[in-house]
Amino acid sequence: MTTGTQNTKWNIRASKASQRAVNPIRRIVDNLKVAPHPQKAVISLALGDPTIFGNFKIDESCIDAVISKFRAHTSNGYGPSTGLQVARDAIAQKYATKTSPLTPEDVIIASGASGALELAIGAIADEGQNILLPCPGFSVYETLAGPKKIQCRYYNLNPERSWEIDIEHMKSLIDENTAAIIINNPSNPCGSVFSESHLKDILAVCDEYHLPLISDEIYGDMVFTGHKFTPIAALTDSVPVLTVGGLAKRYLVPGWRVGWVLIHDRNEILSDVREGLVSLSQMIIGANTVIQAALPEILHKTPENFYDETNKQVEENALLCAELLSKIPGLQVVKPQGAMYMMVAIKPEEFKDIKDDVVFSEKLLGEESVIVLPAQCFKYPNYIRLVITPPKERLIEACERIENFCRNHHV
Amino acid sequence: MTTGTQNTKWNIRASKASQRAVNPIRRIVDNLKVAPHPQKAVISLALGDPTIFGNFKIDESCIDAVISKFRAHTSNGYGPSTGLQVARDAIAQKYATKTSPLTPEDVIIASGASGALELAIGAIADEGQNILLPCPGFSVYETLAGPKKIQCRYYNLNPERSWEIDIEHMKSLIDENTAAIIINNPSNPCGSVFSESHLKDILAVCDEYHLPLISDEIYGDMVFTGHKFTPIAALTDSVPVLTVGGLAKRYLVPGWRVGWVLIHDRNEILSDVREGLVSLSQMIIGANTVIQAALPEILHKTPENFYDETNKQVEENALLCAELLSKIPGLQVVKPQGAMYMMVAIKPEEFKDIKDDVVFSEKLLGEESVIVLPAQCFKYPNYIRLVITPPKERLIEACERIENFCRNHHV
Repeated sequence: MTTGTQNTKWNIRASKASQRAVNPIRRIVDNLKVAPHPQKAVISLALGDPTIFGNFKIDESCIDAVISKFRAHTSNGYGPSTGLQVARDAIAQKYATKTSPLTPEDVIIASGASGALELAIGAIADEGQNILLPCPGFSVYETLAGPKKIQCRYYNLNPERSWEIDIEHMKSLIDENTAAIIINNPSNPCGSVFSESHLKDILAVCDEYHLPLISDEIYGDMVFTGHKFTPIAALTDSVPVLTVGGLAKRYLVPGWRVGWVLIHDRNEILSDVREGLVSLSQMIIGANTVIQAALPEILHKTPENFYDETNKQVEENALLCAELLSKIPGLQVVKPQGAMYMMVAIKPEEFKDIKDDVVFSEKLLGEESVIVLPAQCFKYPNYIRLVITPPKERLIEACERIENFCRNHHV
Repeated sequence: MTTGTQNTKWNIRASKASQRAVNPIRRIVDNLKVAPHPQKAVISLALGDPTIFGNFKIDESCIDAVISKFRAHTSNGYGPSTGLQVARDAIAQKYATKTSPLTPEDVIIASGASGALELAIGAIADEGQNILLPCPGFSVYETLAGPKKIQCRYYNLNPERSWEIDIEHMKSLIDENTAAIIINNPSNPCGSVFSESHLKDILAVCDEYHLPLISDEIYGDMVFTGHKFTPIAALTDSVPVLTVGGLAKRYLVPGWRVGWVLIHDRNEILSDVREGLVSLSQMIIGANTVIQAALPEILHKTPENFYDETNKQVEENALLCAELLSKIPGLQVVKPQGAMYMMVAIKPEEFKDIKDDVVFSEKLLGEESVIVLPAQCFKYPNYIRLVITPPKERLIEACERIENFCRNHHV
C-alpha cells in the first residue's frame, strides 16, 4: 500500500522486498520471444535437473528406505527446526573428515540447498553489507540476497585456467562491509572442480581478511577421472566455513527439497552466527520429516556403484559433447571436470548475424529447437551453458543441430 | 562483521535480521528452568502436533498414493516454483467455492503453511509497514515479520465472546502504514471458530480501509458439532484475500511440509502482489514434488469418514477436558469450537503462590510433570494453552494431575 493518507480506494502493491527477489534466468529466458522450430522436436539442455529424461534415477534402495518410513507412520510429525536428530547424525557422519569433524549440532537441515543458502546468507550478512560471488555463477545467490538488501559483488573466474578464481580481483572487491565469500565447487555453470592448491589460495584470502566462507558443495563428489573433490573445510583449521549441501544432485532428487548447512567452526568464531541460523530455521522449518528419517539409509547404505555409475555416465556425456562441439566453427569448449554442465564460448566475430549469447540461444531455439541458456543468465556474456545429462542419442542430435546452426550462420 | 576498518581479527556476528527472527514460544519455554517430577512420567500438552501419541494418523490411502508416486520415479525432479500443475489443479478444485472460484494460477505451493505465510506476508508488507495480528495469536506471524522489519500490531480477541475480534480495537490500530490484516480461523491457540456474521464484520473493516486480508485457515474444517467453518473468501466479492492452508493438521502430517497460498482476487487488485508471490516462490522452491504429485489423490480420494473420525475424536477430547477442568478451583475453561487447542484462564488471586501463567506452567511441570504452554507465548498472560489430541487416558491423567496441583496451591 502506498503511504500517506488513509486509502479511499484499493491500491495494493507488492512489497519492494519481493520485487528485489530477482531471478536473472527467468528475466532473460522469459524474454526469448521465439518459438521452437515447428518440425523439430525440442531438446532442452537448459534445466539443471538430471531426472527429466529418465536416464538418471535415484537408487531403488533409497526409495525402499523412504517407503518403509512412510509405512511406519512414525515420522509424520514436526521435527526440531534444525532437523531430526537421526538425520543430523547421519549427515555429520557422512560429511565429517579427519581434519573437519562434525557433530549433529553442526548440521542444520533446510528445504533444499537453496533453503540452506537462504539460511547461511541470511545469518551471516545484513542489509548494507556485501557478499562476494563467482562470475560466472549460479543466480540463486543474487535472488536470495535481493530481498535482504545485501549487495552482490562478483569476482572473476578465468576460463583459461579451468575457471579458477582471479584471486587478486577477488581481493580488490573486499571492503569493511564484506560479510562473506561464497564459492561454488564443483561449479554450476562451469563444470569446474578446484584443486587443493587453489582452495588453499581462497582460504588464504579468508585468513588475511578474516572473512567467513560459504561453500556451496551441492555437486560435491560429482567429478570426472583425474579430478578430485575436496571439501574446502577439510583444508583449514582457522577459517570458519558454512558448507551447503543436499540430496538434489548426488542422489538425483532435486524435487525432494532436502538440503543442509554444515557449520565448520573449530575456533568458535561463529557462535553468534550459529544462533542466528537456528533462529532463522524456525521461520519455516524446512525438509519433509519422513525423508529426513530415511537419511541414515540413503546416505550410508546406497551402494557405491550407484555413485560411480552416475559419475561415469555424466563423464561419458561430457567427453562426447566436448568432442562433438569442439569441431564446430565459432565455438570454443571449456572441458568440464565435474558437476553436470559445460560452458561453451561463442565468438560473435565469426558469425554473420549473431551478436551475442542471447541472440545465439534465441535463434538456435527458433531454427533447431535446441534450448541452451545464454550465460548472461550467469552474468557472463558470450558463453552458453549446456546441461549434459540427457541420454547420449539426444545429446548427439543436439550437437548435430548446433553444428548445423553454426555452419549456417558462420561468416 | 563490524563495519569500520578492515578486520585484523575474527569478529563475526550474526546478522541483525536473524536476531529479529524471534520465536516467543522458544524464548519463554527455554527459560522454564524446572525439571519434571522424577517419579512422574511426563505428559506434554504443549506441542500442536497431533501425531506424537499415535492415536491420530493420516489415512492409509494417502500413504498408498504417496508411495505409488515414489515407486514411479516420475516426480523426483524440480517442479515449477509455484508448484506442480496437477497439484495446483487439485488444490484449486478442492478449495474453490461457488462464491470464491479458484484456478490453478491462484495457487502457490510452499514449504508448509509457515512457508506459505512467509510468502504471503513477504509479498504484501514491507519494512516500515505494519500488519494486524490476533491477540492471543500464534507466534509464527511475529517470527516471520521480524527479519523483514514489518511491525506487528495486536488486536484483542474477547474470551467472553468465544474469542471474537474486538472490531473497534482492530480499527483503532489501522493507520496509513497498515499493509494487511491477518486472521486465524479456526484459531490456534483459542480453538475458536468464527461465525459467518463475525467474518462479515471483519470484511467490512477491510472494505472500509481498503486493506487486504491474509486468512490463516490451516485448521479449516476442523470444527465441532454445532459450529461451521466458512472460508472467509467465500463471503466477499470485494476484499482481496490470501488464504493460507496446507496438509499439516487436516491430514495429520505436519512434518510433510506442504502448504499453499490461495489468491482470491476477483477484481485484480492483487496483480502486483501475485507477481511478488511468484518472485518470492523462486527463492527456495518449497514442498517435496513427490508428495505434490500425490495431492490429487490425497485431497480428492481420502474417505470422508477419515475427516469425520478425526473431528469426532478431537471433539470428544475437548468435551472431556472441558468437563474435567471446569471443576477445578482457580481455573476457568473457554470451551473450544474447533482446531485442537483449549485455552484455560488461571486466576492468580485464587492461588497462594502462583503469580501468573509462567509460574503456573513451571510449577506444574516440576510437581506433576505436565507440560502446558503459558499463554504469554501468545501475548496473553494468565491463560494456559492445552493441546487436546493426546489419547483419552493420558488426558484424564493430565487433568487429574492439574487438579491435584491446583488444589495444593489454592488459597
